[in-house]
Amino acid sequence: MRIIYGLILLLFLLTKPFAQAQNGIVVFQSDFGLKDGAVAAMKGVALDVSPNLKLFDLTHEIPAYNIWEAAYRLYQTVPYYPKGTVFVSVCDPGVGTERHSVVLLTKSGHYVVTPDNGTLTLLAEHLGISEIRQINEAINRRKNSNESYTFHGRDVYAYTAARLASHTIRFEQVGQKLPNEVVRLPYQKAESTKGVVKGNIPVLDVQYGNVWSNIPKAMIDQLGIKPGATLRVQISQNDKLIYDKVVRWVNTFGEVSVGDDVAYINSLLNFSVAVNQGNFSEKYKVFSGPDWTISVSK
Amino acid sequence: MRIIYGLILLLFLLTKPFAQAQNGIVVFQSDFGLKDGAVAAMKGVALDVSPNLKLFDLTHEIPAYNIWEAAYRLYQTVPYYPKGTVFVSVCDPGVGTERHSVVLLTKSGHYVVTPDNGTLTLLAEHLGISEIRQINEAINRRKNSNESYTFHGRDVYAYTAARLASHTIRFEQVGQKLPNEVVRLPYQKAESTKGVVKGNIPVLDVQYGNVWSNIPKAMIDQLGIKPGATLRVQISQNDKLIYDKVVRWVNTFGEVSVGDDVAYINSLLNFSVAVNQGNFSEKYKVFSGPDWTISVSK
Amino acid sequence: MRIIYGLILLLFLLTKPFAQAQNGIVVFQSDFGLKDGAVAAMKGVALDVSPNLKLFDLTHEIPAYNIWEAAYRLYQTVPYYPKGTVFVSVCDPGVGTERHSVVLLTKSGHYVVTPDNGTLTLLAEHLGISEIRQINEAINRRKNSNESYTFHGRDVYAYTAARLASHTIRFEQVGQKLPNEVVRLPYQKAESTKGVVKGNIPVLDVQYGNVWSNIPKAMIDQLGIKPGATLRVQISQNDKLIYDKVVRWVNTFGEVSVGDDVAYINSLLNFSVAVNQGNFSEKYKVFSGPDWTISVSK
Repeated sequence: MRIIYGLILLLFLLTKPFAQAQNGIVVFQSDFGLKDGAVAAMKGVALDVSPNLKLFDLTHEIPAYNIWEAAYRLYQTVPYYPKGTVFVSVCDPGVGTERHSVVLLTKSGHYVVTPDNGTLTLLAEHLGISEIRQINEAINRRKNSNESYTFHGRDVYAYTAARLASHTIRFEQVGQKLPNEVVRLPYQKAESTKGVVKGNIPVLDVQYGNVWSNIPKAMIDQLGIKPGATLRVQISQNDKLIYDKVVRWVNTFGEVSVGDDVAYINSLLNFSVAVNQGNFSEKYKVFSGPDWTISVSK
Repeated sequence: MRIIYGLILLLFLLTKPFAQAQNGIVVFQSDFGLKDGAVAAMKGVALDVSPNLKLFDLTHEIPAYNIWEAAYRLYQTVPYYPKGTVFVSVCDPGVGTERHSVVLLTKSGHYVVTPDNGTLTLLAEHLGISEIRQINEAINRRKNSNESYTFHGRDVYAYTAARLASHTIRFEQVGQKLPNEVVRLPYQKAESTKGVVKGNIPVLDVQYGNVWSNIPKAMIDQLGIKPGATLRVQISQNDKLIYDKVVRWVNTFGEVSVGDDVAYINSLLNFSVAVNQGNFSEKYKVFSGPDWTISVSK
Repeated sequence: MRIIYGLILLLFLLTKPFAQAQNGIVVFQSDFGLKDGAVAAMKGVALDVSPNLKLFDLTHEIPAYNIWEAAYRLYQTVPYYPKGTVFVSVCDPGVGTERHSVVLLTKSGHYVVTPDNGTLTLLAEHLGISEIRQINEAINRRKNSNESYTFHGRDVYAYTAARLASHTIRFEQVGQKLPNEVVRLPYQKAESTKGVVKGNIPVLDVQYGNVWSNIPKAMIDQLGIKPGATLRVQISQNDKLIYDKVVRWVNTFGEVSVGDDVAYINSLLNFSVAVNQGNFSEKYKVFSGPDWTISVSK
């Protein structure tokens, strides 16, 4: 009998670390860059909470203080990660001011630790809000960090994310529950009227200079256009027309010649334009942000 | 007896995850850069296949569409990794066209998941081809990804690599076996005639501006030159002579003064030239690619 | 009885890998950049020693040959990692010359594998030297690497760090014990005289262009100045005055308007100046290094 108990104890001890290992993923995003030690210090704090955590990077090249782009990168990647993954996003022009430090649990089962300054705009919209809690810094703050006023990323966000991902605390222990609302950045949503679909250019595909819109493929389908056909694309900054051309909608860039303008559906299933093996943004001086609009028609 | 069976079962359960852990390494390379979410999305897909995978980066700074450099970076690093490591390389100007999506098993026991567009040129030559299989996208493609035509890196390559590295599929389940051939990029091989060794400049040591050749140390040895001696180095782009000097072959840069030109054997055991604590490439306007040749003589 | 022995053996086998997992962290720093395969090759060598190691990056964007900045980044991050973490720092203008290859054990319990060329200046001062050993390259050198004279980072440093972090060797097996001294780079220390605190600008907060000093908060406190008050800041390069202004000392940037100059205490608890949501360094042409001094008074 004693051996049976021993075996049960053994099994318990064994399953515990394996169970935990399935949840110990933390993904970091910031506008810190990788030239100094800021990101490495955040990871050190996380590993000091638990050396078994698995730490990854979304990107640390968010342009300084660009909350909109931080929001977009989360939208672009969070859905692909397993449930229970904890994201940390620190792009925080108002560091130390009255914006809340929160942890969002999305309806898809992902956690995001961040200042609630607009960073959660697109995740709240696309994945939905299951619950939001305000970080109680009296508890969830690295020890001996009281003198330091400016590095919340390390002392509060990385620390809290690591405690949550390592099961040191439960979600309820993050802090008090807040109403299911987040600070939202205003932006032009995609809309279709009289055979014209209009939308915004939220970001560029920076590495290649391709131009991404927030217009879902389904809206283009509703115009009655199919891949292989041509469509008219107009791009404006504020009210100034910058680009106006008829381009071919392709499934793969291999369908057209090098240097041709093309329309395509990007990896987020949104309407996009590019120069095949070229840089659309540089060639036509088209950039991204709230002041840029794109419209598509037959 | 029942307890013995219990112990055997226990041992089996325990050894399985440890055995798997020795093979769960995936290394990513691309021309995506790290400013957006593309690499992070690939990693999310891999972790969703198995959260126990160990994910690393080779580089994501391959110049856009530069297949030659992608091939070179694999050649430079793959041999140092343990057998069974799975590499993913996505540099794919012909995305969606008729090039095959393959997994190469080298004779050294490494796997590479990539479009067969020349990326495997140098690995095939230096490590040898054990077996190549074409990815069967009917099976090895992320669920719900049919609508997206353009992100093979995430939906096919990262997904297949993760399934292979996590033992979700065996190598045979990647897809049908192909002939033991890969698409090869033409390039000037190192050759020795009448006391002159001639070769190509495949890449620069970009961080320092040193110039690397594809001439192995053994060919220099055959000229009867030893470290410490001087040799004549000529560098041409196409037929135009760019550099012609006598330099000293050193074992360590500490042997010469700061600012001196030196010849040395690089970490791949190939002949190279540099300015000690300076930038050879910038100083002499010497770059890399198929149109650059370098020759060495007494 | 046999079953009891079996259980004891089982427990031993189980606890061994878990114990090891708590120490298997290696953190890499270099001036190699991430555009080529150098860092990936180092990691391959480490994983070939033990595939269970957990590998992280401090930064690989140390400016080429800038030992001072390498020293500073270690000082900025090492203290946040758990005891037993092994750091590898390769910034080595004198590669192959007579500087020692060493492993430092700090009084805080961290290991640093590096050429002893000044890289350890600030760690030795701030964390203290527990013991230093010279790497015995007859033993601690990757097999078959004798022909390659120039990549110590991969063949000696990464290899030794991996062996140490994976318990393949004990610290004593690194090589012979050296005297408790390291090569130190000279720099202006912070000092307070007659109501003026003077110090050095060791680095910029590069991503934002903020200017960090080596003056600890306590020295400013001793001037009798409190957060919220104003103070006079003067910055000189050699003897040339570059900046002279009265600025407000804030706890959080949110206390002042966008574009205002501010003084603040950075995440290392040192005195710093910035432009709120701007770039102080670019605006006033203030940079970092041994020739820059900053002074603070009422």
